[in-house]
Amino acid sequence: MSKILENYKGVKDVNKMSLEELNSFSKEIREFLIKNVSKTGGHLASNLGVVELTLSIFKVFNMERDKLIWDVGHQSYVHKLLTGRKNEFENLRNYGGISGFPKRQESPYDAFDTGHSSTSISAGIGMARARDLKKENYRVISVIGDGALTGGMALEALNDIGYNKTNMTIILNDNEMSIAKNVGGMSSYLNKLRTDPKYNRLKEDLNSTILKIPNVGKDMVTTMQRFKDGVKHLVVPGMFFEDIGIKYIGPIDGHDIKKLNEVLRRAKEVSGPVLVHVLTLKGKGYKFAEQNPNKFHGVGPFDSCNGECATSSSRNYSSVFGESMIELAKEDKDLVAVTAAMPDGTGLLDFSKKYKNRFFDVGIAEQHAVTLSAGMAAAGLKPVFAVYSTFLQRAYDQVVHDVCIQNLPVVFAIDRAGIVGQDGETHQGIFDISFLSHIPNMTIVSPKCIDEMKPLLKWSLDHNGPVAIRYPRGGDCNNLRLQPSENFSLGKWETIKEGKDVVIIATGKMVQHAMLAEMELKKENIDCGIINATFIKPIDKKNVDLLSKKYKNIVTIEDNVIQGGLGSTILQYLNSIGYNGTVSNLGYEDEFIPHGNSNKLYEVYGLNPSGIKEKILAGLKV
Amino acid sequence: MSKILENYKGVKDVNKMSLEELNSFSKEIREFLIKNVSKTGGHLASNLGVVELTLSIFKVFNMERDKLIWDVGHQSYVHKLLTGRKNEFENLRNYGGISGFPKRQESPYDAFDTGHSSTSISAGIGMARARDLKKENYRVISVIGDGALTGGMALEALNDIGYNKTNMTIILNDNEMSIAKNVGGMSSYLNKLRTDPKYNRLKEDLNSTILKIPNVGKDMVTTMQRFKDGVKHLVVPGMFFEDIGIKYIGPIDGHDIKKLNEVLRRAKEVSGPVLVHVLTLKGKGYKFAEQNPNKFHGVGPFDSCNGECATSSSRNYSSVFGESMIELAKEDKDLVAVTAAMPDGTGLLDFSKKYKNRFFDVGIAEQHAVTLSAGMAAAGLKPVFAVYSTFLQRAYDQVVHDVCIQNLPVVFAIDRAGIVGQDGETHQGIFDISFLSHIPNMTIVSPKCIDEMKPLLKWSLDHNGPVAIRYPRGGDCNNLRLQPSENFSLGKWETIKEGKDVVIIATGKMVQHAMLAEMELKKENIDCGIINATFIKPIDKKNVDLLSKKYKNIVTIEDNVIQGGLGSTILQYLNSIGYNGTVSNLGYEDEFIPHGNSNKLYEVYGLNPSGIKEKILAGLKV
Repeated sequence: MSKILENYKGVKDVNKMSLEELNSFSKEIREFLIKNVSKTGGHLASNLGVVELTLSIFKVFNMERDKLIWDVGHQSYVHKLLTGRKNEFENLRNYGGISGFPKRQESPYDAFDTGHSSTSISAGIGMARARDLKKENYRVISVIGDGALTGGMALEALNDIGYNKTNMTIILNDNEMSIAKNVGGMSSYLNKLRTDPKYNRLKEDLNSTILKIPNVGKDMVTTMQRFKDGVKHLVVPGMFFEDIGIKYIGPIDGHDIKKLNEVLRRAKEVSGPVLVHVLTLKGKGYKFAEQNPNKFHGVGPFDSCNGECATSSSRNYSSVFGESMIELAKEDKDLVAVTAAMPDGTGLLDFSKKYKNRFFDVGIAEQHAVTLSAGMAAAGLKPVFAVYSTFLQRAYDQVVHDVCIQNLPVVFAIDRAGIVGQDGETHQGIFDISFLSHIPNMTIVSPKCIDEMKPLLKWSLDHNGPVAIRYPRGGDCNNLRLQPSENFSLGKWETIKEGKDVVIIATGKMVQHAMLAEMELKKENIDCGIINATFIKPIDKKNVDLLSKKYKNIVTIEDNVIQGGLGSTILQYLNSIGYNGTVSNLGYEDEFIPHGNSNKLYEVYGLNPSGIKEKILAGLKV
Repeated sequence: MSKILENYKGVKDVNKMSLEELNSFSKEIREFLIKNVSKTGGHLASNLGVVELTLSIFKVFNMERDKLIWDVGHQSYVHKLLTGRKNEFENLRNYGGISGFPKRQESPYDAFDTGHSSTSISAGIGMARARDLKKENYRVISVIGDGALTGGMALEALNDIGYNKTNMTIILNDNEMSIAKNVGGMSSYLNKLRTDPKYNRLKEDLNSTILKIPNVGKDMVTTMQRFKDGVKHLVVPGMFFEDIGIKYIGPIDGHDIKKLNEVLRRAKEVSGPVLVHVLTLKGKGYKFAEQNPNKFHGVGPFDSCNGECATSSSRNYSSVFGESMIELAKEDKDLVAVTAAMPDGTGLLDFSKKYKNRFFDVGIAEQHAVTLSAGMAAAGLKPVFAVYSTFLQRAYDQVVHDVCIQNLPVVFAIDRAGIVGQDGETHQGIFDISFLSHIPNMTIVSPKCIDEMKPLLKWSLDHNGPVAIRYPRGGDCNNLRLQPSENFSLGKWETIKEGKDVVIIATGKMVQHAMLAEMELKKENIDCGIINATFIKPIDKKNVDLLSKKYKNIVTIEDNVIQGGLGSTILQYLNSIGYNGTVSNLGYEDEFIPHGNSNKLYEVYGLNPSGIKEKILAGLKV
């Protein structure tokens, strides 16, 4: 059936295709995507939404020369398929396989690596200006979603491009969604452009209507001239864009290849920045994804016939965080939750329904989310900002400047801390201990198991200052008897097990890996103590004092880079008290961690239980 | 002469003042500010610009209950004067004296600490939502400049407030300046609102004109109705704000107290978010500042009669950076410079004139600046983003995600690294080593003296990957014979002096402090070696190997927090090779550093030469 795809040789083929062929090709591509992603998992809905758009860009632009930048980048599967990676799809997002995001190292057709939101316009402007200065000759196209457009840096970029009139094309891929439904004034504005029939009708008949007005006297002409700019707001619905200096074309149907081709050709002729507003449907062409684009945003393997995923019944940190929030909110009416477009991923969906007026989804806007939380805390609320580790990176300055300098009681619920797996480099949460530990007034904690989530969250809310509570993606390790602590006090660690030869100080889920490693070490006759560093900051100095006297070997383990991490803090303290045993800091070396199954990555980077065992054996001084 | 100010008791006095008194009071306040800031130095121009605005806010709102947030905050002097801090002005920005920014710890009238740009709307929304949830009763007013409005997070906040209709007042203090002249599409848009006579004229006569149109037939009425929204764009010039759900009032003259009072009263009655667009003149009422607002933005002591500053003839890092950029640009046509609204402070003013098309001022938009640079680098340019250490915090994610993951050759010229002095907590550049060292692919260097700026910058440009070059505010220490290196190689340190008892590994200007400390130690018969860690990352492991064999005592010094800094990297390496001498890491402890003269702060925090000497003596094991 897949005749076109089967014979497809490369990007030049698209240029030659007729409209009819492009439409057939769209169908084949959708089938290919559904078939493959149902096996590997991945971002399905966003890719189904851009099949016609991607084909049209490839048809109209010169992909062997022009630069195409996909914002976020999880919608680049069609692009990958069209640029020689068809056979790699069976290894999509697996360790060693192709990434789910654009990667310059993977293909010359990938112009810029993306992953986080709202970067594509900035990168595109940079390329366009380089082209102009170097007197080169190519076009730059940045495709950005309506959700990503609410991220501050996208607006910073629009502000710059409109002013400096840099020649490039922005395609606004408007599907009314980030991962969840979009929020915000910008989204309302886009909705107005999208749905108000006035805009489209007027575009067609306004000019002729003006000419038909009877008895237009001199006054009227003047008035009409005065109206000119005002009318322009109707004729050109994207007046916001025009106001800041960007030519606006649209909105147009993003699944109509004929229209897309026409409009993109027109956009090519515009000099200066132009924005093409394209309306697409997330999940288009696969009814289960159309009905539930949220579920099919990022999805595990599923049955393509009925859209059913293999459900995992195991509890995970996110959902228990969400449940804990609901329970704690009952007791404390000042507790509020903040999210940046992640009500579902962070486990707050039920909270958002149950406590509608105490739930604030600010859109993709982590910076605003943090300072909003700071304002709330300054005025007596207890805000919890739930955010993935990697996305909190975008609000580093706000954490320092707006929360910590004022020592405000904001709780950062840092989900996806440590290895996150298949999303790869751009999404691993392996820096948060390092970028938070050096901020004065910050306290950092981590539950050793899911059942510590609620009491530790409660402790964090009771602490009168900023607290980051970090926890991993997924759930606990199997086959471990974990005894959750109920009570915590600032900077106090828990002794899991006394030992003799070596003590492991681990934090978070690494406590579980340490426990599993300890069992293996026991078989080698190594008697290993285990400490749970519930508090990553401040560390338990009294405890370290005791450990330094008792043990000749101290090992630290964290699911974070070694530089600037928990191990370095402990080592600095041990140095200051003149400890002369061995200290080994386990964590990630100075490199980015690529995509792959989490357990595979733990193994490759030596933080799985047997890797830990090996490293301990290698460093042991008896 | 200062009759009103002399008898001023507190905020309630303003409520009672007549228009005439308020006008006289404005004059007195200006005289007070000029007189005092001419002695202490400080932010003058921005404060002269908001005298009438501040008085009007105090007149119309209830300052004993309402929350007033000053974005950036350097324009809060009038606010401070009106809230009981008149007598503290002689110690403005000195160690132990009042801050040049709002501080909650300083006064209950300071609702939120500010310093960095674009935070006030987010914080204000947070407070307003807290008020509503807690069913309290006060108003929230955020005053934000037109420059700050281009910072992404301000736009994120506008997006949120317009959508959720939170009840608060935003005052847009539009003086067409950040520190330098504003740039960007938003600024063009505001300029249109400000200067287009059509807007103001139409507001007054549009409705009546419509009614006067002769022979309006049915068609015409329909057309007119269709025009309604378009006309609204004329009647309500702030259509951008209205489009995203924020009521817009203005623009109005920010020096006309009568009008300000009227309009602010009107704004108070609006339910939902309202933005009042106020036009002010930076430096208003002091001719030298009006003529040169840039110079009087942040100024040292000056002669109030002629506006002359005591000129310092000594060379500083910023100006030499600027000169070096001009020289290197001659040799390399791919070199370009990027700044976020700091052409002057970063020393790039001459460059911007000489290489107009290779200079990019993106406005207050550090995030965009970094990813723009990444795009430029990906397309073959050699961008140098010149930025103050503290402001680079805002682009931490972009450094990780857009530059370092792709290992792109972007140079970060990090000015004001280390203690910056009188701007205090929010501006000290004491975190950059810690927030950059843990990012894979990043190289960090620092010149030990001004004359190493150019060759080290050249080395950085030749290195094929991201490089951060950090240097302090001001110039070199006096009375030191510094021999600048001309050649550098990746990760190689310089031996300044061999010693016997102890070796200091210092970086940047701390090398100079180390040299001065060494002279003092010599008097105590301590023979001290000195190493210049030109490379903060990667460290010179071979050199450390040698040092570990030669010295029983190793001391590290950096103008940065100790946690996650250079010292911690060196200590981790020494630990890994089993060094058993003493290691002392000097730097800043885990606390924010307040405002004060830099030398005073070095003294207080023990990083002046004699403080270093004392610490070395205390830790020495002979």
